[in-house]
Amino acid sequence: MAKTDWKAEAKTLKKKLSKLKDRLEDGAEAVVAAVTKAAKPVSPLAPAGFPALPVIAGVEFAAVEAGVRYQHRKDVMLIRLAAGTAMAGVFTRSSTRAACVLDCQAKLAMKVPDGAGAAIIVNSGNSNAFTGAAGIASVAAVTGEVASVLNLPASRVFSSSTGVIGEPLPHDRITAKITELAEALHEDAIAMAAQAMMTTDTFPKGASATIEGDGGPIHIAGIAKGSGMIAPDMATMLVYIFTDAKISPAMLQKMLSRQVDDTFNAITVDSDTSTSDALLLCATGKSPAAEINGRSKVAKSFEAALRGVMLDLAQQVVRDGEGATKFVEVRVTGAASPEDAHRVAMSIANSPLVKTAIAGEDPNWGRIVAAVGKSGAQADRDLLSIRFGDILVAEKGWRNPDYAEDDGAAYMKQPELVIGVDLGLGKGAKTVWTCDLTHRYIDINADYRS
Amino acid sequence: MAKTDWKAEAKTLKKKLSKLKDRLEDGAEAVVAAVTKAAKPVSPLAPAGFPALPVIAGVEFAAVEAGVRYQHRKDVMLIRLAAGTAMAGVFTRSSTRAACVLDCQAKLAMKVPDGAGAAIIVNSGNSNAFTGAAGIASVAAVTGEVASVLNLPASRVFSSSTGVIGEPLPHDRITAKITELAEALHEDAIAMAAQAMMTTDTFPKGASATIEGDGGPIHIAGIAKGSGMIAPDMATMLVYIFTDAKISPAMLQKMLSRQVDDTFNAITVDSDTSTSDALLLCATGKSPAAEINGRSKVAKSFEAALRGVMLDLAQQVVRDGEGATKFVEVRVTGAASPEDAHRVAMSIANSPLVKTAIAGEDPNWGRIVAAVGKSGAQADRDLLSIRFGDILVAEKGWRNPDYAEDDGAAYMKQPELVIGVDLGLGKGAKTVWTCDLTHRYIDINADYRS
Repeated sequence: MAKTDWKAEAKTLKKKLSKLKDRLEDGAEAVVAAVTKAAKPVSPLAPAGFPALPVIAGVEFAAVEAGVRYQHRKDVMLIRLAAGTAMAGVFTRSSTRAACVLDCQAKLAMKVPDGAGAAIIVNSGNSNAFTGAAGIASVAAVTGEVASVLNLPASRVFSSSTGVIGEPLPHDRITAKITELAEALHEDAIAMAAQAMMTTDTFPKGASATIEGDGGPIHIAGIAKGSGMIAPDMATMLVYIFTDAKISPAMLQKMLSRQVDDTFNAITVDSDTSTSDALLLCATGKSPAAEINGRSKVAKSFEAALRGVMLDLAQQVVRDGEGATKFVEVRVTGAASPEDAHRVAMSIANSPLVKTAIAGEDPNWGRIVAAVGKSGAQADRDLLSIRFGDILVAEKGWRNPDYAEDDGAAYMKQPELVIGVDLGLGKGAKTVWTCDLTHRYIDINADYRS
Repeated sequence: MAKTDWKAEAKTLKKKLSKLKDRLEDGAEAVVAAVTKAAKPVSPLAPAGFPALPVIAGVEFAAVEAGVRYQHRKDVMLIRLAAGTAMAGVFTRSSTRAACVLDCQAKLAMKVPDGAGAAIIVNSGNSNAFTGAAGIASVAAVTGEVASVLNLPASRVFSSSTGVIGEPLPHDRITAKITELAEALHEDAIAMAAQAMMTTDTFPKGASATIEGDGGPIHIAGIAKGSGMIAPDMATMLVYIFTDAKISPAMLQKMLSRQVDDTFNAITVDSDTSTSDALLLCATGKSPAAEINGRSKVAKSFEAALRGVMLDLAQQVVRDGEGATKFVEVRVTGAASPEDAHRVAMSIANSPLVKTAIAGEDPNWGRIVAAVGKSGAQADRDLLSIRFGDILVAEKGWRNPDYAEDDGAAYMKQPELVIGVDLGLGKGAKTVWTCDLTHRYIDINADYRS
């Protein structure tokens, strides 16, 4: 038997060991990469950054760490509004809406004391919804403390809470921080306020507009939070929009109510409507421009600018849809009525099968046909046409003979998609915005509370 | 410098190598286990096996590989029904329903030639929906060939197609197989027929009942297919139920229509209604028992047995819900009206947030509150109560003070769950069945067509 050359054997073994170590390291790196990708904190559809919002004279912000639920992050924010600010709002129609929503609705209906200022206090981490009499007491405690510290009538302190449903709100943690918040109030802190109300949001949302009023510029700046449980019904998530316009509360409310249907009520992430949806619009009147009146040119341009800010914020909510990788516009035209157009658009936008096909970049237009069919709206197979962007996919009750599946597949690879459906029946039209349904949505929602 | 002991060094290196190999193997095993689990072919909620169904005299089955879309599996099945068979049916109300559904509806409304037999032909792989005039021609070609080979009036040949929407049905592949199918017809082949119509189903579905008629037993046996795109609207998926009862078509249809609301229309997997849903009920009259009449005791027991078979099949469809790991019964009571009860039950059963919480075994009852709130039904927060099985979770507008989250969490670990919601307003009640929403649903539906 030949003598073993242990030195050569050791050399070979060292090589083998080194190779095996490399494989383990490669494996570990792949795992780290996969985990990092899965935990990627910001939506791929997010805007490049938080926009530079104009300072709205008469609005001050502050945020603080109160530890309502989350630790080591700002979770309570306070907004002070100047004397004479006009307020308007829209809210969720959920029959199980939160105590703070009911309180806001009651207060907006009250007569405003002459020249009174106002305040808004918002916490994340706990929605104070389905919390019974204790929930009502919490709202009174929090808004009462703000009224006392800021020397405001209690009827002018509005509150919102967002987060888990059904847990008692530890309101002492909030009231303990009001003085600190009041001392920190600053006109140039709107970005921090947007950050403080985030829950599953991956980026803070802001939008603005400036128009020429009679005698000076009028500014609008808004912030929003929302990512899941998004299918607003006559209102939405948490949205605060500010303007320095001089305008009556009645006109402000009218414009807001008119614009909400085609903006916040035209988005859906998951068909689930929140118990906490609230949008407050506050006009401080601090602009040098004259008061906005009736049917003036300025009123029209103000309402258009307001709509622009609302739509921008609403679309940002969809872009931050839980797990979203695609931003989808669903354009329905040719419906027998506007109601039918809305039904068909939402039926498509909420269909799990359409949303998973989009996630898989599969141009599965048959699922769009099925979603039209189940919507309950009047539809005629032979008049229906379907488009992906400019690509005519189907018409006259069948696939367009010139449609190539490869074109549809290439189109679906884009991050922003337009699905066009024409029903060929009438003039009803509706455009809504949604996102795809991905594994990440399941990850986020099968493990939200732990 | 000490001389290196290469033998000892080699020994050490060998040990290290062996350990590293073990780690690699453990890693590989973990990967294999994870992949195997992900690809597990049969729903964890499936029954132990396909049940032993009674032979229904006068019904014969055959199935064949026609290669409509899938290869190497039976994808077309034929059923022949004896002369004098009474037929009844319910179908999808989708406005984009398939050509074969429209054809079945038209034929069921026609006068039946005296003593005529009947046939049903079903293919999987292609739904022949949204296929225009070509789709209608395909139905005529397939049913015409069956009529010719089996010597039946064309008006007595019913067809169903299930699979991808919007692709032309290659009906030649089916007509080429009719003679072969006719020659293979056999009374004892219902299990094979159940298998041949599966698409994303992970198990074939069957159920049966036997009752005592006047003068002999009456048997009922049914088969179903369905797994995704399940939210039947007045009908469902593909279901065929057979009985040897002697009964008029009118009475058969009446019983079927009466029972469909609390069985097939009380299930949902993903809120998406199919374009192909069809249920055909066929009574051959071959039982020695006397004809079933009006309000007799046998009529009642027959209808109850029929309901049992329908409910069993409907629940099997939910148990095979795409990606399902939990079978969930949602029991709503105390609603202001039956319609409200249905709305609330479906709002809970279709809520992506409720379904993902269940997938994550999270007793997140706040999401049930939100689903009640968004349903549009009358609800009063302070009268509402919520139960997980026998555990009272919430009542009187708040969490039950005796409820322990640990009990809820332990309950959610079970594969079969009952969510009870009492609205405390009236006598409206509705029970529906659904499943959870998991990663596997996304896997299946983001990649269905490839």
